[in-house]
Amino acid sequence: MTAGNSFGTLFRFTTWGESHGPAIGVVVDGCPSLLPLSEADIQPYMDKRRPGQSKYTTQRQEADQIKILSGVFEGKTTGSPISLFIENADMRSKDYLEIKDKYRPGHADFTYFAKYGIRDWRGSGRASARETACRVAAGAIARKILGKKILVRGALVQIGPHKIDRDNWDWKQVDKNPFFCPDRKAAAKWEAYLDKVRKSGSSAGAIIEVVASGVPAGLGEPIYDKLDGDLARAMMTINAVKGVEIGTGMGAAALSGEENADEMQEDGKGGARFLSNNAGGILGGISTGQDVVARFAVKPTSSILTPRKTVDRKSKNTEVSTKGRHDPCVGIRAVPIGEAMMACVLADHYLRFKASRI
Amino acid sequence: MTAGNSFGTLFRFTTWGESHGPAIGVVVDGCPSLLPLSEADIQPYMDKRRPGQSKYTTQRQEADQIKILSGVFEGKTTGSPISLFIENADMRSKDYLEIKDKYRPGHADFTYFAKYGIRDWRGSGRASARETACRVAAGAIARKILGKKILVRGALVQIGPHKIDRDNWDWKQVDKNPFFCPDRKAAAKWEAYLDKVRKSGSSAGAIIEVVASGVPAGLGEPIYDKLDGDLARAMMTINAVKGVEIGTGMGAAALSGEENADEMQEDGKGGARFLSNNAGGILGGISTGQDVVARFAVKPTSSILTPRKTVDRKSKNTEVSTKGRHDPCVGIRAVPIGEAMMACVLADHYLRFKASRI
Amino acid sequence: MTAGNSFGTLFRFTTWGESHGPAIGVVVDGCPSLLPLSEADIQPYMDKRRPGQSKYTTQRQEADQIKILSGVFEGKTTGSPISLFIENADMRSKDYLEIKDKYRPGHADFTYFAKYGIRDWRGSGRASARETACRVAAGAIARKILGKKILVRGALVQIGPHKIDRDNWDWKQVDKNPFFCPDRKAAAKWEAYLDKVRKSGSSAGAIIEVVASGVPAGLGEPIYDKLDGDLARAMMTINAVKGVEIGTGMGAAALSGEENADEMQEDGKGGARFLSNNAGGILGGISTGQDVVARFAVKPTSSILTPRKTVDRKSKNTEVSTKGRHDPCVGIRAVPIGEAMMACVLADHYLRFKASRI
Amino acid sequence: MTAGNSFGTLFRFTTWGESHGPAIGVVVDGCPSLLPLSEADIQPYMDKRRPGQSKYTTQRQEADQIKILSGVFEGKTTGSPISLFIENADMRSKDYLEIKDKYRPGHADFTYFAKYGIRDWRGSGRASARETACRVAAGAIARKILGKKILVRGALVQIGPHKIDRDNWDWKQVDKNPFFCPDRKAAAKWEAYLDKVRKSGSSAGAIIEVVASGVPAGLGEPIYDKLDGDLARAMMTINAVKGVEIGTGMGAAALSGEENADEMQEDGKGGARFLSNNAGGILGGISTGQDVVARFAVKPTSSILTPRKTVDRKSKNTEVSTKGRHDPCVGIRAVPIGEAMMACVLADHYLRFKASRI
Repeated sequence: MTAGNSFGTLFRFTTWGESHGPAIGVVVDGCPSLLPLSEADIQPYMDKRRPGQSKYTTQRQEADQIKILSGVFEGKTTGSPISLFIENADMRSKDYLEIKDKYRPGHADFTYFAKYGIRDWRGSGRASARETACRVAAGAIARKILGKKILVRGALVQIGPHKIDRDNWDWKQVDKNPFFCPDRKAAAKWEAYLDKVRKSGSSAGAIIEVVASGVPAGLGEPIYDKLDGDLARAMMTINAVKGVEIGTGMGAAALSGEENADEMQEDGKGGARFLSNNAGGILGGISTGQDVVARFAVKPTSSILTPRKTVDRKSKNTEVSTKGRHDPCVGIRAVPIGEAMMACVLADHYLRFKASRI
Repeated sequence: MTAGNSFGTLFRFTTWGESHGPAIGVVVDGCPSLLPLSEADIQPYMDKRRPGQSKYTTQRQEADQIKILSGVFEGKTTGSPISLFIENADMRSKDYLEIKDKYRPGHADFTYFAKYGIRDWRGSGRASARETACRVAAGAIARKILGKKILVRGALVQIGPHKIDRDNWDWKQVDKNPFFCPDRKAAAKWEAYLDKVRKSGSSAGAIIEVVASGVPAGLGEPIYDKLDGDLARAMMTINAVKGVEIGTGMGAAALSGEENADEMQEDGKGGARFLSNNAGGILGGISTGQDVVARFAVKPTSSILTPRKTVDRKSKNTEVSTKGRHDPCVGIRAVPIGEAMMACVLADHYLRFKASRI
Repeated sequence: MTAGNSFGTLFRFTTWGESHGPAIGVVVDGCPSLLPLSEADIQPYMDKRRPGQSKYTTQRQEADQIKILSGVFEGKTTGSPISLFIENADMRSKDYLEIKDKYRPGHADFTYFAKYGIRDWRGSGRASARETACRVAAGAIARKILGKKILVRGALVQIGPHKIDRDNWDWKQVDKNPFFCPDRKAAAKWEAYLDKVRKSGSSAGAIIEVVASGVPAGLGEPIYDKLDGDLARAMMTINAVKGVEIGTGMGAAALSGEENADEMQEDGKGGARFLSNNAGGILGGISTGQDVVARFAVKPTSSILTPRKTVDRKSKNTEVSTKGRHDPCVGIRAVPIGEAMMACVLADHYLRFKASRI
Repeated sequence: MTAGNSFGTLFRFTTWGESHGPAIGVVVDGCPSLLPLSEADIQPYMDKRRPGQSKYTTQRQEADQIKILSGVFEGKTTGSPISLFIENADMRSKDYLEIKDKYRPGHADFTYFAKYGIRDWRGSGRASARETACRVAAGAIARKILGKKILVRGALVQIGPHKIDRDNWDWKQVDKNPFFCPDRKAAAKWEAYLDKVRKSGSSAGAIIEVVASGVPAGLGEPIYDKLDGDLARAMMTINAVKGVEIGTGMGAAALSGEENADEMQEDGKGGARFLSNNAGGILGGISTGQDVVARFAVKPTSSILTPRKTVDRKSKNTEVSTKGRHDPCVGIRAVPIGEAMMACVLADHYLRFKASRI
């Protein structure tokens, strides 16, 4: 967990590749053997994250065709590392020539240079959200481990300042609009709002909610590998994320003790159930058996048409405005990414749970 | 990073102990040699977290006297692991007898039992916030690594629904009220509010902000060991935390691209400066050189006097109300804990930064 | 696995303490819950390693009384870290005053100073074999995980140039002589040999063999966490070890392909058996179900009465001869240490094995 | 360090791929930025390990052409993960059809099946020594980190029962014979010996010695990440290795205390030097500044023409003799692999050393 490009412990993946290099990829290690797996299990999730599918995401055309190079034999996982490979396409590095010596506000240009003394400026190089395609691929394998009983779903619950009405929540709506929005009415409003943002050359932030149902009680390792700690890290490492919440989240601060702590009662089947889920399915870092609920905020895309003040590599004042293709709201495509990270964290803790019993 | 009770990579600590066991402790590994260190460097931070200092925190009286058992020779660190030891005192395990077979709402009682099949119910055992004393001790050593140029400070910015007025922010006020509140006026109001909460047997949540100044640009390891990812995990693993924000945090979703991305300009000294700090000092997972700003929400103390519905170990309906000594707002004492976690994360990344250059 | 004082992944322990500090200890993390555990389960192994039990080991008198400080509740493990504590006793730091500014040949004095710029010279500080008491304690807990079906035993098979006759191997003899020697006749000869070594103020090396029986097939994680790779590291980190062998070991080089590869045949019970065990129970890094056999060489104790050429901290020529109490053959006490390391590696891989299946 | 296909901490690589899959590869993470790097820096080491170069190694023809897919920009490393890619060629999977349901003695066939319940039998799949090509590639990058002052060289010092005469050691000879033998006379004799072995359809083992010169004093992390512990693991994880020695190795057991411990003296330049190097350049797990010397034994190739007794997947008696192309002495090609592992361990500890000082 030191060199930085790996995630997870028992279910562990390592990603590589730059936005405008020949390819990107991910090596998934620790996947149990004998799981049926083919490219067809992964591709649908790639397609969901793929850009260019509506006017609300970048127009870069990426096939994002996944190839399995190892770890699968006769249609089943062998327990060996699974190498997944995605060729890059439709790169326009020239679009970035103008900013190769400028630090774009809100981007990692300055910090990568400060850290490494060198920066692959083509399409933001390693700092590009293109890396998240690898997370989505890993997440598809994680879902295989979780099986059909555990369902991981995400939705956009806020775009710019506009929240959904949670009373309207309908999972079926999520696939019926270009925003992964579970509230049909909100989606309609967002369309107008985001059109305006897009046409003005500006951008908007968003909040994504990811929900895992069917998670058994007992997953998570106190004290420092708590399930919520791992989820917080997982989500915060997604590009442009600035906040992570579990259950009631930041709002928990404003509740009274009576309101917040979820009461329990007999469930009529010999077990117990919770009367509410402020905890977001996690207590003491361990899953309760309720839905695991994580939420994260994505800042507005930093690449905008409006000219912005900045400096160049010699620290001289200059201006920058982005002309490359970009998402007016990068948060939209973060939905499948957030789902993938949730699936990976759960798969890891599911395997760890198995190891914790004799 | 697998078994769960360790934190950090190069600067790495492992904690042990239960609330009502004979002692708790922490082993700090990876501390560079030749740093001057004695108990006197650590004790002030222990005292800051120590309970029983005002009517707003639990009345359990803990000396929390720190003992260094290894790793220091003739007043200096030797590079060997530093074992820190804290005896437990003033334990009243009897207070917990009544709940030993009940799951307290909002507590980890149910989940620990689900995971482990056994639970040390005395003072919540390992799940108790008593563990955080060890984090504070480790944090004091982390500060030694950071040196005097890097200053890590925390403050309470919200209690229940009551926020501070950020225009009143004055770091000097933080030590002058029992809330670590930087807004003198807010502190006065909070006193009345929390008195009421306390007398009614209820509890309140809080939001803590931790700020690190003097952090050089370049700390943090993309992609999965980003500085903000590690901070998110660090804060989320503190007991009762439900949300973590960096910089503008969840609020970033509502900003426009123009508002959010921090512009840069010449600083008049040959370098560059940022015109704002929505990023909270981190871009692309790497520190920018600005203040690193993390915020986290602590839920209201789950142990309250009001009877609450719950079940016992046999899943039978029952009620529970807590009679043990508890903090009406556990968030207050989270301030030094949050500071400690920030210091530990920065110390780790500081050492990692050194390793990343030839 | 970075800061250096921890061993293992899922079953993971961290040790601390110096030879002449107030105490030493080990924190065992990742031990499954619900295992019966008390000091009485650990103490016999401590006693086996304890010095001062014959004239062939150092005369330092250490009670090595183990104390469990956490992780056990009502006689069972809780899944929380188990902190084990051993007070130091009978320290004679004055014995080391003379060498505090000299580098003793064969010792870590020079290298610790080169690395850390400071050195706790009292009893060799952290570099002392006293640290191995912690390994033995951890090993006792590992045995609890392995259960009664897996038996880990060690023996001394060579002392100085004198090997045992493997045809005389009798496990029952191991506890009947001060050398843990399985060959009664060899033990008798060794007595005379080591008396001579001891009286002349010299020292002797040794080779230890550790055998684990009852290990199921399938333990070990290719490619880099192979069972033999982990054993090699485990044994090589024991003080004074210079070589590690699995099965036929270095001797495998001299065998022909026909001699070396262990043939298999029906076992008459529906399964298969091996006709020999040159592999030492490991193929491709994974256990075969046969006895796991590891061997390691311990160099002769570096502390001898004969004056030796060396330099002081200012790199000036000087001489040194050791007057502190030392083992004439430190390899003898390495037997229980090697057993402990074998048990810890197996326990770790046993838990990992459980995690590798859905 | 859990899922098994990664090696190292700060300098850390992850390998993937099977012998007869479309490709194999390695992701090198943690390489510092700004190092000049191109395929031309790596290819010579690939060529050295490449099979089919003499009649003493397998006749499989592999170009082993290395491709860099990421982490390098304008000829320099960027600090991002370096993905190296090697296409497989000249695979004859049909050669293995006969053994797909048989366990070859000395191979991992049985254990992989025991562990995973599935086995890619084509060319031994993941268990094939083909994986070591990835180690060699990683090692070439490690050498870039070590720079020109640290020289890592390997040689074959024994083949079958025939040792070199160490008095004849001449590094220049190593590249002048097909055995990497430093003793011209021994090489001549080995030729006749190995011809005989090859023609009889048998195989021979070997011992390899790897020497690193120019290593500064101070590398290595006590207690469990000792330099020799990491080297032992590194070498033992190479296919077919059964023993690892540091310095005098197993032979240290037979030495007296006077013979073994290396004395020191003034070096005439204000520093100190050692009078011998039984320690193999490591004391207390930390480098001394002398040559670091590691040796390992490779068992004879298990694939031989002679029919051998074994069982099939149903545990029925059968016979097996290998007809695929194989090395009569797989140890020969282990020389560049051992060098690579030494380079990787040293590069990792070199970076860790930098992190250990403020």
